[in-house]
Amino acid sequence: MTASTKYEQLLKHIRELGHLESSVALLDWDAETYMPSAGIEIRSEQIATLSRMSHEKMTEPALGELLAELEGNTDDDDAATNVREMKRTYDRAVKVPGRLVEELARTSTRAKETWAQARKERKFELFEKDLSRLIDLRREYADAIGYEEKRYDALLDEYEPGMRASQVTAVFDSLRGPLSEFVQQIADASQKPDPSVLHRHYPEATQKLWCRQMAEVIGFDFKCGRIDISTHPFCSGTGPQDVRLTTRYEEDFFNAATFGTLHEAGHGLYEQGLPTEHLFTPRGEATSLGIHESQSRMWENMIGRSMPFWKRYYAQCQIAFPDALGDVPLEKFYGAINTVEPSFIRVEADEVTYNLHIILRFEIESDLIDGTLAVKDLPAAWNQKMHDLLGITPAHDADGCLQDVHWSFGGFGYFPTYALGNLYAAQFFEQVRKDIPNLDQQTESGKFDDLLGWLRTNIHQYGSRYRAAELAERVTGKPLSAEPFLNYIRAKFSPIYGLG
Amino acid sequence: MTASTKYEQLLKHIRELGHLESSVALLDWDAETYMPSAGIEIRSEQIATLSRMSHEKMTEPALGELLAELEGNTDDDDAATNVREMKRTYDRAVKVPGRLVEELARTSTRAKETWAQARKERKFELFEKDLSRLIDLRREYADAIGYEEKRYDALLDEYEPGMRASQVTAVFDSLRGPLSEFVQQIADASQKPDPSVLHRHYPEATQKLWCRQMAEVIGFDFKCGRIDISTHPFCSGTGPQDVRLTTRYEEDFFNAATFGTLHEAGHGLYEQGLPTEHLFTPRGEATSLGIHESQSRMWENMIGRSMPFWKRYYAQCQIAFPDALGDVPLEKFYGAINTVEPSFIRVEADEVTYNLHIILRFEIESDLIDGTLAVKDLPAAWNQKMHDLLGITPAHDADGCLQDVHWSFGGFGYFPTYALGNLYAAQFFEQVRKDIPNLDQQTESGKFDDLLGWLRTNIHQYGSRYRAAELAERVTGKPLSAEPFLNYIRAKFSPIYGLG
Repeated sequence: MTASTKYEQLLKHIRELGHLESSVALLDWDAETYMPSAGIEIRSEQIATLSRMSHEKMTEPALGELLAELEGNTDDDDAATNVREMKRTYDRAVKVPGRLVEELARTSTRAKETWAQARKERKFELFEKDLSRLIDLRREYADAIGYEEKRYDALLDEYEPGMRASQVTAVFDSLRGPLSEFVQQIADASQKPDPSVLHRHYPEATQKLWCRQMAEVIGFDFKCGRIDISTHPFCSGTGPQDVRLTTRYEEDFFNAATFGTLHEAGHGLYEQGLPTEHLFTPRGEATSLGIHESQSRMWENMIGRSMPFWKRYYAQCQIAFPDALGDVPLEKFYGAINTVEPSFIRVEADEVTYNLHIILRFEIESDLIDGTLAVKDLPAAWNQKMHDLLGITPAHDADGCLQDVHWSFGGFGYFPTYALGNLYAAQFFEQVRKDIPNLDQQTESGKFDDLLGWLRTNIHQYGSRYRAAELAERVTGKPLSAEPFLNYIRAKFSPIYGLG
Repeated sequence: MTASTKYEQLLKHIRELGHLESSVALLDWDAETYMPSAGIEIRSEQIATLSRMSHEKMTEPALGELLAELEGNTDDDDAATNVREMKRTYDRAVKVPGRLVEELARTSTRAKETWAQARKERKFELFEKDLSRLIDLRREYADAIGYEEKRYDALLDEYEPGMRASQVTAVFDSLRGPLSEFVQQIADASQKPDPSVLHRHYPEATQKLWCRQMAEVIGFDFKCGRIDISTHPFCSGTGPQDVRLTTRYEEDFFNAATFGTLHEAGHGLYEQGLPTEHLFTPRGEATSLGIHESQSRMWENMIGRSMPFWKRYYAQCQIAFPDALGDVPLEKFYGAINTVEPSFIRVEADEVTYNLHIILRFEIESDLIDGTLAVKDLPAAWNQKMHDLLGITPAHDADGCLQDVHWSFGGFGYFPTYALGNLYAAQFFEQVRKDIPNLDQQTESGKFDDLLGWLRTNIHQYGSRYRAAELAERVTGKPLSAEPFLNYIRAKFSPIYGLG
């Protein structure tokens, strides 16, 4: 059999894997959007069976042999990408014993319940035992996979392939001080915007039409996607031709749906821009969660919370919500949507303080995985860091270390990708401004073709051709750094807060 | 290994099959309801892969061995049912060569397109070649499966297990004459209802709320199901706890959504009434398409088009659609929804003429499979039979032999189940009237608990425990016959048409 026949075999295998995995994604999407409530138990079983089949297909020895024969023996760049990334996934999958996979699944199913209960009752102790067990299992998992520097790297690699804790630490260390300082300057500022208008009444029916229009104007293609409602917004789907966004509508808070939609539509634009001809293969898939998040944050914040954007759309927004915004001048609205305020809850945090929430989580989960922080000391460590970074202390753990779902499913190594997304976004955006000098005028005219074209050309079309760090360096000519982000927020927020 | 351990193994195997098949059902449902238009190509691939996996799982030799060992060696009645029905499905699946399955799939994919084109252009010749090929393949398919009396039996058995063409012929023969005669009497009647009010304006938004309420009043449980929109209404889902109905709204035709919803909700009530503890096994599944159709037709016609039902709901209906029905008295409305009129299109046919459409199709497809009718002579044969049975002749084949999709996917043997459904419904309903003497008063009070309870107890709870014919005989004390149906329509329609 020739190498190219073998490669065809590999493609067939991974496309079938893709059919299984994308079916699971649809089962999940449906569970979050339209499934009747009584359907959940059976749905879990369907998903479990299909996931197991998918895992079996992922760990078939025949796949390993194909990959071994094809490694370094491919015809072109695309094939090399697919072999490289499939080998990485295959190696990770076969290294972890089935027993450990099952125990992780079982423990996290239970932990999600004890976490929810602990959060509801504001009692960390209720979650402590399962969390300890999950950490032990994840340590064992990381050891099975192996690592060069830190055990945490093996976990981080799942979400941000090729990235190491030491790199994250380096960039977070350069971010932490200046960011905390800027937050303090904002706190001390005498000029402050007033966000109260965002809590007036915004009828859901109008928000639906409005949000759909906002997704459409930035380029989301509804022939190849849709938007529905779910409790926790997400972006899912089956390749570039079927991208599913969700959002949620709060009638007494403007930001939730509008910026939530722009965020998810940013993810959706990445998905719709991936190369269809490489569907279901790594070459046609997003390269990392960090890069994915850079796309959502750029559209949500750098475009969606910018003055040029609202110069174009604020009059329409006032017409949509006359009772809430009819008497609010643009400048006041712009200040409101860009209010900076240290707060307890990550998902409600503004652009400036958000990364500090992530630094806190990264440092804590690193210590938990290293074993230098005991689980019982987690609440105290959390509150101390919250005080150090943001100057505030939560009254209870539901506003502190129990707020996020991630750890309850064993998702250690996930949090850093949120902050990496913000940093990548700023670094890309700095380059965008050089390459599209009249970006602000274009935005003010509601024209996003050049920006979307830039993202398509520089990022989307490559799928997983380049790992995140390499991609960033190719596109911007320099390695990832906190500098562009710090420059961006200083330039944007200093005028809003009257800082020199 | 003990027999009961083997049975556990069998259950595990067929439940996993169920997870795959029900995932395919959801992929299909989504394709018909929410999928963005560009998603269809990839969706077909997903479905093809999962269907192939499901076929592989269905034909695993290990499954055949398990079934062989368990046959006649089961602990209880439920196990015996599951072994019997799985063996039937397994035997059918392994007898058909993979080559034939693939060629059928390929040919019907093409045939669906040529059929659509032929129907659009009203040119039977465009479809003739693919139809001939499909008939040849289905004959080959039937021969692979085997049969005792007629080749057609092997096809019919797929939809109506255990039923034979000779039985269908016998019952249709006793139906054909009296029914044609009654249609003629109605055509000659001097007193006729006027259906024109059904074509006034019925706003879609109101119809949605109205139809949901109608489904709810007859007992459809929305915690365990939902209703959405699709071009061709259907009932699908994942077991009793997640039943998906669809309907379609026509603003200028009252019947489409209201009776369409009652019909699909009738199917849905059967699905919701199947025993959850036997989910994904034959014991927990509908026993035949004919029995399924009996449930939908009973709720749609015997309840939904009855005077007691509208005595209860017509005032509400007038309030919902004041412009269309405000000036229409109940009697006039009742006549309108029960208008009998020979017409060309099966799916638009009334209760009385409907079965004649089916008899026509059954006779023609039997002859096609037998080889006693040449494909090129199909249009002429159709038109002749249409004239003989209904006294009308279609002007072109789009209103004649090209109207239905079934043959284009090779679905020979499917049509009879529609008429069997009507006959089973009438026979069950005759028994219902004996067992619930005050049924009309209950219906007039909007109380359907007793009727639904009767269906649950006598039909739904049994799943595939009994084949259709056996079930009917157990429930009604006599074999399937056309008599109850003929009595039902004579009793109902004679007063409407002022017949003696």
